[in-house]
Amino acid sequence: MIEVNGDRLWASLMSMARIGATEAGGVRRLALSPQDREARDLFVSWCREAGLTIRVDAMGNIFARRAGREANAKAVLVGSHLDSQPKGGRFDGPLGVLAALELVRTLNDHKIETDAPVEIVNWTNEEGARFTPSMLGSAVFAGKRTLRSTLDITDTDNVSIEEALAACGYDGDDAVSIDEFDAYFEAHIEQGPILEAAGNQIGIVTGGQAIRWLDVVVEGAAAHAGTTPMDRRKDAFFAAAEMALELEALAARKAPSMLATIGQLAIANASRNTIAGEIEFSVDIRHPEDEVLDDIESAIRKLFGEVACKRKLQVTLRQYLNIPATPFDELCVSSVRRAAQQAGYSSRPIISGAGHDAINLATCLPSAMVFIPCVGGLSHNEAEDALPKDVFAGANVLLHAVLDRARVAT
Amino acid sequence: MIEVNGDRLWASLMSMARIGATEAGGVRRLALSPQDREARDLFVSWCREAGLTIRVDAMGNIFARRAGREANAKAVLVGSHLDSQPKGGRFDGPLGVLAALELVRTLNDHKIETDAPVEIVNWTNEEGARFTPSMLGSAVFAGKRTLRSTLDITDTDNVSIEEALAACGYDGDDAVSIDEFDAYFEAHIEQGPILEAAGNQIGIVTGGQAIRWLDVVVEGAAAHAGTTPMDRRKDAFFAAAEMALELEALAARKAPSMLATIGQLAIANASRNTIAGEIEFSVDIRHPEDEVLDDIESAIRKLFGEVACKRKLQVTLRQYLNIPATPFDELCVSSVRRAAQQAGYSSRPIISGAGHDAINLATCLPSAMVFIPCVGGLSHNEAEDALPKDVFAGANVLLHAVLDRARVAT
Repeated sequence: MIEVNGDRLWASLMSMARIGATEAGGVRRLALSPQDREARDLFVSWCREAGLTIRVDAMGNIFARRAGREANAKAVLVGSHLDSQPKGGRFDGPLGVLAALELVRTLNDHKIETDAPVEIVNWTNEEGARFTPSMLGSAVFAGKRTLRSTLDITDTDNVSIEEALAACGYDGDDAVSIDEFDAYFEAHIEQGPILEAAGNQIGIVTGGQAIRWLDVVVEGAAAHAGTTPMDRRKDAFFAAAEMALELEALAARKAPSMLATIGQLAIANASRNTIAGEIEFSVDIRHPEDEVLDDIESAIRKLFGEVACKRKLQVTLRQYLNIPATPFDELCVSSVRRAAQQAGYSSRPIISGAGHDAINLATCLPSAMVFIPCVGGLSHNEAEDALPKDVFAGANVLLHAVLDRARVAT
Repeated sequence: MIEVNGDRLWASLMSMARIGATEAGGVRRLALSPQDREARDLFVSWCREAGLTIRVDAMGNIFARRAGREANAKAVLVGSHLDSQPKGGRFDGPLGVLAALELVRTLNDHKIETDAPVEIVNWTNEEGARFTPSMLGSAVFAGKRTLRSTLDITDTDNVSIEEALAACGYDGDDAVSIDEFDAYFEAHIEQGPILEAAGNQIGIVTGGQAIRWLDVVVEGAAAHAGTTPMDRRKDAFFAAAEMALELEALAARKAPSMLATIGQLAIANASRNTIAGEIEFSVDIRHPEDEVLDDIESAIRKLFGEVACKRKLQVTLRQYLNIPATPFDELCVSSVRRAAQQAGYSSRPIISGAGHDAINLATCLPSAMVFIPCVGGLSHNEAEDALPKDVFAGANVLLHAVLDRARVAT
């Protein structure tokens, strides 16, 4: 079984990491910034060296095609993104783009022809750090957003995506259609601690979990902290605290698939010596299955309502965001699983907790992902790290999953 | 038994309430503002009409003396404040000043001589709304703060108290010493719901409770809400919620004397889809007895520490403010109790939950307070209200408590 060149891939990752490198060992390479432009230019030069055909679409997504033997076969798309968080790491994104490049270089080394073309892609603005929301390039490509409205999105300096694309020379005009493609594969660091803790080198990603964001408002009564007896209070904070613990207990009952987080909380007119009269907090709940998440949301509404009733105050819950679960394509996932098994890597099925371009692609194209562990589960952090042996393993799995789909010409 | 003139007192309160009146029926009369000056001028003119001798000290505290028969007797001081919260009510402060004026007017009506002089006082900046902290005039008078440092305190427009006093013409130079006085009495609305709920007209205030403010910092680990399994989280928010409920349960065990409030909470770098890594929140705990509050603070440190230990994160508690309990003088309190009983008013002992000038005075002069109910327990609110019958009762109790101390000349 052929293998990628692990040293070459690592060297490419480290060369890429020098662009926008931060003192703390991370990367600052915001979408369509001068650093992103430099990264794109380097990537394109490497693709040209590998004999690939470059196209850039109106969203600045870069496509680099290695021809297949069958003239009319749909291409297997494989890639990720080169932009980073403001204080990001060296692997979140570039791993998927450069593992794709490495697999093409390996095919070239071995003079392997595939029936279907293999095409690398670098998606624009995956991070959502400069332009909000995230995953914009893949969203437009997948038809989830219109091009026009997306080009008009501005950063905090009021620069639009359209202007930023022109400024960095990636305002392409190639019409690249989803109809040209057969499947999409993406390698990525896990961005969580599961694989490392379990001692697995490969995560076979079975899909993206369902995400729901709720806004909760608790209305009690503001009053003087020194003159109001405890039994006459309608303290919105203690009520919110009890709701929080009910939420945590519910997650424990639905372990390990349910995740629950309260990341934001605001006390209206907060003062040390005033009983909280009104509180708003966010709830982030996730589960791999839509139906179970429906049940969870119902349970939360019931539990919070009971706390409010017992404490004689008001609670209202509003759905702010509802992203359904995104199961990946069974055949594509099988290709990944088989590739991992045949190479003898320790692997496990895993749900993608974070958003990825593959989650957008999966709505319109058979898709799958390969995860590798990241040290300490750390990501979106300058200290983000991955081990060379895991990077090597991930690229090999990506290689054989893509070969499985693109079919080695015999 | 003589009684005050309830109609005259109510009319004076309503005249005073027109100065700085707000559309919502409240009062905006910030300390040393043009409205406060107008209120002071009206008060001084009424005092002169009543034949009183006016003095103004360097803090702008106004003293208005009715002579006693004994040349060397120390005076009985009685009063409160005329300044208000930005959106304050008509009774918080003026009730105590004008009930004092009414008792003098009543003595005049009845041509009653007292052995000791009776002196009314209007304290500067009780509310702390324009100049922080509160109760500054009485604090300087009681020797708890230096005059110089207090005159230098500035408002948000950078105007100092010294400048504001000069601007409103109350930069006095009369040396008024605490040594001239024998005792201090103050009438005030309760600013809480206890008297109204119990159906009492008079609260015999036995002292101010001890107050302690703690700053609590919980340090967990920020992480991705979508990729971090529940059992691998160090969620600072759920920890804070559990601490909050432990605090509430402790207050229930120490009911009804212990009060506990969490009025402020901040999640560092809060984001909907990030697990709270660090949280800071305030704890306000109160109890009438210092020793019990010591025990309560120890219990909180232990309980919070146990929650942190169980959840494998860090908690630190820092004392931010520590105001000891201020028991009022037993003889003065007896004078109030006797006055209420002899007039046949339904009364109860009560602890002052809020701060008052009398709390400052009590550190250096025998002091006591008379509370009357306020409607719905509401205060620091434009809707603050009190019933004429309760205002009448409070002024009568104040009259007879002061007479008891100043001794009617026979």
